[in-house]
Amino acid sequence: MEIVCLDMEGTLTPEVWERVAANTGIKELGKTTRDIPDYGELMEMRIKIMSENGIKLSNVQDAAASLELLPGALSFVNKLREKFQVVILSDTFHDVAKPLMKKLGYPFLLCHNLKVIDDEIVSYEFRHPQAKKQAIESFKSLGYRCFAAGDSHNDIQMFEVADKGFFINAPLKISSKHPEIESYDNYNDLEKAIYSNSIFVQT
Amino acid sequence: MEIVCLDMEGTLTPEVWERVAANTGIKELGKTTRDIPDYGELMEMRIKIMSENGIKLSNVQDAAASLELLPGALSFVNKLREKFQVVILSDTFHDVAKPLMKKLGYPFLLCHNLKVIDDEIVSYEFRHPQAKKQAIESFKSLGYRCFAAGDSHNDIQMFEVADKGFFINAPLKISSKHPEIESYDNYNDLEKAIYSNSIFVQT
Repeated sequence: MEIVCLDMEGTLTPEVWERVAANTGIKELGKTTRDIPDYGELMEMRIKIMSENGIKLSNVQDAAASLELLPGALSFVNKLREKFQVVILSDTFHDVAKPLMKKLGYPFLLCHNLKVIDDEIVSYEFRHPQAKKQAIESFKSLGYRCFAAGDSHNDIQMFEVADKGFFINAPLKISSKHPEIESYDNYNDLEKAIYSNSIFVQT
Repeated sequence: MEIVCLDMEGTLTPEVWERVAANTGIKELGKTTRDIPDYGELMEMRIKIMSENGIKLSNVQDAAASLELLPGALSFVNKLREKFQVVILSDTFHDVAKPLMKKLGYPFLLCHNLKVIDDEIVSYEFRHPQAKKQAIESFKSLGYRCFAAGDSHNDIQMFEVADKGFFINAPLKISSKHPEIESYDNYNDLEKAIYSNSIFVQT
């Protein structure tokens, strides 16, 4: 049995903060780890802007709830769950991801926690500076082979420790820096690549 | 965010091997960790009897597929998945558990692997001598609080390391040996106990 570790935003869902930016008209809030690879720096900026503009957790949750999964994502995840154990490894926050996890049928999610007072995001707590990498190392220590797929800078840490990593929907400016990582732009090809690298699943 | 770790057989589903025993008429195959706490000893016995009687993996899978979840189990798991991350920590095998995981909506499952040749179970591979304990220790090292619930001897290892453990549907002969562990005989009471021990979920 093998575990497939999937990033969430950009991989299975649109970027939540891009919707927040569209809803609020504050362009800066739409930046992601594709633009600012240092996630701590990105979150500090977001919290500062939210505080200055009275934007609350519920606004972010409403943005997440209004998003549809990327086309084909649900079918992709459902097919994987029949043959592998699936984990969503995301740098989002549990409070933000919840409506999207509901749409995905509540797969197992590991991500970060927000500190919230009266609906205001006052700070955030990263589980670990490289939480995605740490999770895969843990699953490997439990005796599982791990696949990983993601689209952005913060997914490289997964590829470093997974038995096999894949880009999916990654911008060329990111994937071209890592020619050693196979890169796909649709779920069918990614699914086939995972199968062909599995030592348990018959294609 | 907290992780709820649930045993499978006896906790959410009937005992698969009891159905195998009923289907084959071989009473010895119905023994579980409730009867023989040493799981290696139990599996050696099962494999020997299966070999002697021509019983195959597919017979065990058919038995598992014919089982219904325990009454209320699906609703219990679905409600938990809305508020916690849920993991099934079982001493079953991925090949055996699959039809039951399908009925539960494919929650994340960590268990063991069988070695199978031409539909014959030739041996088994435990991930770890105390795989349930090891998994909870890993989740704690990832920064999560963990609850655990189960019904039998092999669940005690979870209770030793979980932030809080509970018996559910446990025989008195097992639960009475561990009066320090709260013991429940229905999902509603267990759910309330989990909520009341959560530091994140509002009841």
